[in-house]
Amino acid sequence: MSDTDILLSERHDTGVLRLTLNDGRRRNALSEEMLSRLGTAIAEAGQDPAVRVIVLAAHGPAFCAGHDLKELTAARQAADRGREDFTRMMQSCAGVMQGIVACPKPVIAEVAGIATAAGCQLVATCDLAVASEEARFSTPGVNIGLFCSTPMVALSRNVTNKHAMEMLLTGDMIPAARAAEMGLVNRVAAPEALTETTMALAEQIASKSILTVSTGKRAYYAQREMPLAEAYDYAAQVMVENMLARDAEEGIGAFIEKRAPQWEDH
Amino acid sequence: MSDTDILLSERHDTGVLRLTLNDGRRRNALSEEMLSRLGTAIAEAGQDPAVRVIVLAAHGPAFCAGHDLKELTAARQAADRGREDFTRMMQSCAGVMQGIVACPKPVIAEVAGIATAAGCQLVATCDLAVASEEARFSTPGVNIGLFCSTPMVALSRNVTNKHAMEMLLTGDMIPAARAAEMGLVNRVAAPEALTETTMALAEQIASKSILTVSTGKRAYYAQREMPLAEAYDYAAQVMVENMLARDAEEGIGAFIEKRAPQWEDH
Amino acid sequence: MSDTDILLSERHDTGVLRLTLNDGRRRNALSEEMLSRLGTAIAEAGQDPAVRVIVLAAHGPAFCAGHDLKELTAARQAADRGREDFTRMMQSCAGVMQGIVACPKPVIAEVAGIATAAGCQLVATCDLAVASEEARFSTPGVNIGLFCSTPMVALSRNVTNKHAMEMLLTGDMIPAARAAEMGLVNRVAAPEALTETTMALAEQIASKSILTVSTGKRAYYAQREMPLAEAYDYAAQVMVENMLARDAEEGIGAFIEKRAPQWEDH
Repeated sequence: MSDTDILLSERHDTGVLRLTLNDGRRRNALSEEMLSRLGTAIAEAGQDPAVRVIVLAAHGPAFCAGHDLKELTAARQAADRGREDFTRMMQSCAGVMQGIVACPKPVIAEVAGIATAAGCQLVATCDLAVASEEARFSTPGVNIGLFCSTPMVALSRNVTNKHAMEMLLTGDMIPAARAAEMGLVNRVAAPEALTETTMALAEQIASKSILTVSTGKRAYYAQREMPLAEAYDYAAQVMVENMLARDAEEGIGAFIEKRAPQWEDH
Repeated sequence: MSDTDILLSERHDTGVLRLTLNDGRRRNALSEEMLSRLGTAIAEAGQDPAVRVIVLAAHGPAFCAGHDLKELTAARQAADRGREDFTRMMQSCAGVMQGIVACPKPVIAEVAGIATAAGCQLVATCDLAVASEEARFSTPGVNIGLFCSTPMVALSRNVTNKHAMEMLLTGDMIPAARAAEMGLVNRVAAPEALTETTMALAEQIASKSILTVSTGKRAYYAQREMPLAEAYDYAAQVMVENMLARDAEEGIGAFIEKRAPQWEDH
Repeated sequence: MSDTDILLSERHDTGVLRLTLNDGRRRNALSEEMLSRLGTAIAEAGQDPAVRVIVLAAHGPAFCAGHDLKELTAARQAADRGREDFTRMMQSCAGVMQGIVACPKPVIAEVAGIATAAGCQLVATCDLAVASEEARFSTPGVNIGLFCSTPMVALSRNVTNKHAMEMLLTGDMIPAARAAEMGLVNRVAAPEALTETTMALAEQIASKSILTVSTGKRAYYAQREMPLAEAYDYAAQVMVENMLARDAEEGIGAFIEKRAPQWEDH
């Protein structure tokens, strides 16, 4: 990995892994190479006991501009007019997004600039998102004849229908403050305080029991898709197993004894 | 069609069709006749290549007061106390609402006045909604012994549970600004700027590729009801087909070449 | 029932039943005894024709602190390390929460103080919630190694994913104003006006036809879990049956005749 690598990785002693999109020349587009690198990095971090929380940041004025349109266009030269390549690229992108959801470690987007199309989807997909006051968001595919249909899967699970529809049908840019009101990002920070704010949030979560956090993240997305009664049956089972784990015994004991807990995995 | 027609229709060169509820005497109630007219107009606009976006407006102080209570009451004279008539009316109303969702063209509500019961449902059902500062919204069926059970299907898919429950259980009027906070409407305009604001939004969307917009609207509501993995599989397929369509090739090409796209359907 | 009872019950002539958690010594924890008492009280109120609306309040600085950690910890002494007891407790808690949803009478939380973990879940589960400006909300299980997995079932059905995830992953306290923005509570009142505000809301709803309110509440949660077409079929049937009930005939008649309705059940 070098400074010219398109995905920089920086592991902190706190357990926070910073992944930085570093392909400013292509506005950090989700090229096939970027998707492959990002998917692998997320999957590895999910398995790495030294990684407790992942921050996804970017260098350059664009957080991420979505798919690489030149790469997509080049695929049209194939005998099938690109069908096979398009299918692979779209599935790859959807796979990376679902890999973030499936990753047992929380993933936090740190958005300094413009997040558009699949870049906006990336923000919507992360568990949490912190945006600079200068960040902006849009799903502008409708302007180029290619509706943001995969981005809307993530977007529509984060904001209300009319808000999602407005972004999708107009392609308009949404400023950070509006994105926070809509629920697309959690917090907005001054540009110079963005990294500090995001890292403080990441470190706060990294200080907790990783077993507990992983259990909870997995259960969250699983129960979210169930009817109420099924969700309660499932979540009650998760609670029982969590209670029987060592970190809950330690954490509850420490709380009752008014001392700091010592997590197994620190 | 004349000025005394209960549903006025005005097709603009921009591709925007304005449908105006024009039965102020009955507060634009969704009478059987109005439901029939509205359902037919939406269905025809969906098929009409000259219509790209539909604006649903109303004349008079009420946008729409919901079902026609006198018509409902008259049906009680039947031998079955109205069961058959009520069933037909409720299914007809639900059919019109689902016709708006199924319509391939975006439908924008332009709400100048009071939208109550099934009138509030109509606003919730439209893809987008612009309200006058003087518009107000409620689901007041609870006040007359008839809970707004079909309106809540649309309402609860647009606002959070507690917001929906408050409207449904109290029947209270919600001002436009609060409706915007809750996600029931997208934008609030001064009364004198309402039509201009709505038409500008409609024209913005009408300037885009209708194939792309239609593809996206259909996919939006389809994926919204799927679990995440299924939604991604479906949306990725939609993206591939969209990429292979002429308008995406033109739109992406125009974007790369920094020129205005020429949509096939203009 | 005495002043030392852990659950106080006060039935008003207006049809409002006030249930008050009264175990301040244990911060109104959902001990097995409290869960049993609360579950029974809700179930009985659901059947009691004199009860039209339930207000769930609490004495002391904590509205409810969630599960009783000392009780949970004591269960670890069993041969199975608590598995059986934990399972019973979690199922009991999930049962009380679902009992609130299933209760045909609206349940309104009146939150003066801190609502944490399953206490926050209780607020999320109620149909409506009014909070004091001093109320605060959190799902802090992550701090003690026990993720708030059952609370998140209710929380995630009331607020957006990123808001829920932030509460669950950080365990941070949310002030009342923020809870209102997020949709977790409906209204915020000055501390001295909390009970008055809540009771006025309860009495407003209690003045309506209980048959209508019960029909609507049941239908709300049922349709919320259905796909759109199924939800409309179901809700249209509910409307027809509601129309054929005596209170709708009376209510609509009274509305048309501009007189006050006389509900059957008053």
